[in-house]
Amino acid sequence: MPFRLSQLAARFDLERRGESDPEIDGVGTLANAGPTRLAFLANPLYRDQLAGTAAGAVVLRAADADRSPSPCLVAKDPYVAFAKIAALFEPAPALAAGVHPSAVVAPDAVVSPTASVGPLVSIGARARIEAGAIIGPGCVIGEDCVVGAGSELVARVTLVTRVRLGQRVHIHPGAVLGADGFGLAMDGGRWIKVPQLGGVVVGDDCEIGANTCIDRGAIEDTILEEDVRLDNQIQVGHNVVIGAHTAMAGCVAVAGSARIGRHCLIGGGAGIVGHIEICDKVMVTAMSLVTHSIAVAGEYSSGTPIQPSREWRRNAARYKHLDELARKIAAIEAGRPPKAKD
Amino acid sequence: MPFRLSQLAARFDLERRGESDPEIDGVGTLANAGPTRLAFLANPLYRDQLAGTAAGAVVLRAADADRSPSPCLVAKDPYVAFAKIAALFEPAPALAAGVHPSAVVAPDAVVSPTASVGPLVSIGARARIEAGAIIGPGCVIGEDCVVGAGSELVARVTLVTRVRLGQRVHIHPGAVLGADGFGLAMDGGRWIKVPQLGGVVVGDDCEIGANTCIDRGAIEDTILEEDVRLDNQIQVGHNVVIGAHTAMAGCVAVAGSARIGRHCLIGGGAGIVGHIEICDKVMVTAMSLVTHSIAVAGEYSSGTPIQPSREWRRNAARYKHLDELARKIAAIEAGRPPKAKD
Amino acid sequence: MPFRLSQLAARFDLERRGESDPEIDGVGTLANAGPTRLAFLANPLYRDQLAGTAAGAVVLRAADADRSPSPCLVAKDPYVAFAKIAALFEPAPALAAGVHPSAVVAPDAVVSPTASVGPLVSIGARARIEAGAIIGPGCVIGEDCVVGAGSELVARVTLVTRVRLGQRVHIHPGAVLGADGFGLAMDGGRWIKVPQLGGVVVGDDCEIGANTCIDRGAIEDTILEEDVRLDNQIQVGHNVVIGAHTAMAGCVAVAGSARIGRHCLIGGGAGIVGHIEICDKVMVTAMSLVTHSIAVAGEYSSGTPIQPSREWRRNAARYKHLDELARKIAAIEAGRPPKAKD
Repeated sequence: MPFRLSQLAARFDLERRGESDPEIDGVGTLANAGPTRLAFLANPLYRDQLAGTAAGAVVLRAADADRSPSPCLVAKDPYVAFAKIAALFEPAPALAAGVHPSAVVAPDAVVSPTASVGPLVSIGARARIEAGAIIGPGCVIGEDCVVGAGSELVARVTLVTRVRLGQRVHIHPGAVLGADGFGLAMDGGRWIKVPQLGGVVVGDDCEIGANTCIDRGAIEDTILEEDVRLDNQIQVGHNVVIGAHTAMAGCVAVAGSARIGRHCLIGGGAGIVGHIEICDKVMVTAMSLVTHSIAVAGEYSSGTPIQPSREWRRNAARYKHLDELARKIAAIEAGRPPKAKD
Repeated sequence: MPFRLSQLAARFDLERRGESDPEIDGVGTLANAGPTRLAFLANPLYRDQLAGTAAGAVVLRAADADRSPSPCLVAKDPYVAFAKIAALFEPAPALAAGVHPSAVVAPDAVVSPTASVGPLVSIGARARIEAGAIIGPGCVIGEDCVVGAGSELVARVTLVTRVRLGQRVHIHPGAVLGADGFGLAMDGGRWIKVPQLGGVVVGDDCEIGANTCIDRGAIEDTILEEDVRLDNQIQVGHNVVIGAHTAMAGCVAVAGSARIGRHCLIGGGAGIVGHIEICDKVMVTAMSLVTHSIAVAGEYSSGTPIQPSREWRRNAARYKHLDELARKIAAIEAGRPPKAKD
Repeated sequence: MPFRLSQLAARFDLERRGESDPEIDGVGTLANAGPTRLAFLANPLYRDQLAGTAAGAVVLRAADADRSPSPCLVAKDPYVAFAKIAALFEPAPALAAGVHPSAVVAPDAVVSPTASVGPLVSIGARARIEAGAIIGPGCVIGEDCVVGAGSELVARVTLVTRVRLGQRVHIHPGAVLGADGFGLAMDGGRWIKVPQLGGVVVGDDCEIGANTCIDRGAIEDTILEEDVRLDNQIQVGHNVVIGAHTAMAGCVAVAGSARIGRHCLIGGGAGIVGHIEICDKVMVTAMSLVTHSIAVAGEYSSGTPIQPSREWRRNAARYKHLDELARKIAAIEAGRPPKAKD
């Protein structure tokens, strides 16, 4: 389990600097790591902590190496290097293959002999659990669902119906995939339900956060391409398509039939309305609302800055009359009395 | 299972146009439906797809019928007509009545012999599951709860305590009804909990989305009238009352003791503060915050439009001084120097 | 179970006013309480209901006592007094100590003989359930978790791994503590996962709402100090620290590594970005976004007021050009043509 710093340097192809070659048995923060721990410096917010660190070694950029009191591993991207090294120290739960006796598996479901199905799991008709997949305690796998090889449902995940997961998909507790999309039609003063006949398709290497919901499609499928990363508490409506390598922070809401490009970054609590299209490489800042299609890559925002409420209230009151203010300015510029509101 | 288009026209009282009478075995989208599928055109956003459709038939408005390359069913509201027809093709899971042997049912709970209680369900003291109700896998039904006739809890739904569901209520996975309302009182620098002694009453034909929460009342009940439709990830605080036929999109938050009228439409991510009243037929657009009572029907909004962040930052910085700007304008209009801030 | 009003006055050290000494067998609202119920008046919004109340008695402030038609208990803080009295009437579910036969407990987990473990619970390796703790139906307790003495997990709560709860912690259904933090690094166009090696530490007397998520730390722990109160549907990212006695309303999102002080009040749907610090006694109003550290106690807001959409749209359109408007004003004041945009 412990490694010499020189071993880590060789294994991850990183340059080692400093005289000593400490033994490393885990990772830590610059502020608190002890002499057998490896820390890292990637976010410049934490640069001040470098000089005082007691870490056994530090992963950092070449430009920061001279200021390190400890031996270093120099990386072009210290966060990536740290992520790979830290994985060595991650405790891997020893899960036996097989189906726990308390699990309830439909007779026509197929579970690979190398998959692990935990306690109190329910697996429905015609579901398929592929090689090496892990179904943690309390999960519910509904009818006609597929869990691809090497995927992990940590615990208490629900796949409702017609959900097909690719390989190495990682889903956190409380997530619900494949629930009915929110399809309603108003008929004589009462709602009638529009049947949701599609499914959900999740590409390889996707990650889906705790309590996140992805509804199944109305007619066709809701789709996540490969390597999509969704944080917790996200809502994805029916027939949404999310492009490969896009990541969304917590509490984002995406309404039905929106199409989001590849390599997008959607900030926490942002909203995306339905039936619009966002191109590749769009960033949306936290709590912004995207109300129309975006065809040009770049960063987008809405909202107003935080202020002491006493000041904010005065400004907010003026916002209600902003159009009027603008008309007054135009009138002043034109040297005439302000136009009446239309 | 397949139907002639003429049979569908007769069954749903729709006008059929076009020479041929194709056999229809399912539904599809205008873009992708094949010759045995029925598509529909309701949202004008998709009108361009009509000319190129390969669908066997299309449900649409009379005004669009001439442009359809396929035979049509003409409907005043094509979305309603489509919803009804699509229901014919919805696979109905064959659920046997009875209690799965892995379910744990309190001795004094009452389960109708025509109800279906799935695997790994827990049913608490004095609970009542009425005729034809379906309790899917992993649900927890707490003490003194009632699930009305024909209601369905899809999977892993929790009714905590004193939750009474009407008939044909449909609840999606992860929803939590009847948890303690968030009632706290500050007593000498520490919080004390205010007991939450009420329940939750849900009217007939309500639908409640995945991971949505509805807290029970503090003294009296939290109430959803009939035919209320809540999407996923919604939060409804204690003692809220939601009027009949109101629908809320995903991620709405309603604070305690708010009263919302009938036939309201609340957009995704909107917020409603506590102790206010919203009248019937109010629409609130996505991510708006309702901070005061609304007594006039109509559509309401707050927030600012999305922009490239570079432009947005300049505008947002000015918002912090909007009151000052308004004072300057007033001063210019009055031909005097700007007033000092109060 | 019923109490004379005089008994309640003595027990809670409150002044009793009025001639009669009614028997009280429960609590109610001013509007609906009958003659054996105790109501309260704390929020001035409800003062109008006092004159017409049929409650047997009312808890209120001295200033309101004269207007009460019923005998009163006079309290400095009627809400606190009411909370304490109402607790007398709260039905306490009779839970037997012991482990339900349907629960699945790892052989090396330790469950106190005075703890109650409900049906269909799963308890993982090396977990510890301390004296008097209650683990409700459907909970999943992962490896290396601790549930402190007197804590209650109501139902279907998930503690993923390395979650340590203090004493008397109260967690509502659907909450997920200890899921992986959202740590990703972009490596050659694909995401790689940053191992999340920390845990979650929750102090004594914390309350955590339904479907709320608290991720475990990347290296060190995510921390809630004592008496933190979180409502439903809240998202707390990895390595967040929340100070003692802070309360958050529903749907708040706190991004990773944010540090929040003590005695803060965070309004519903508010957002707090990562890596910032908020000092003690900060209030944030509903749906505000905190984008930078706050070093001065007080109330903070962002956003714009709700308006009829027709008016709002005109104002929102102007917001996109607010910087330009401000430049025009400056130009007018200076008596020169407006500056070109930079």
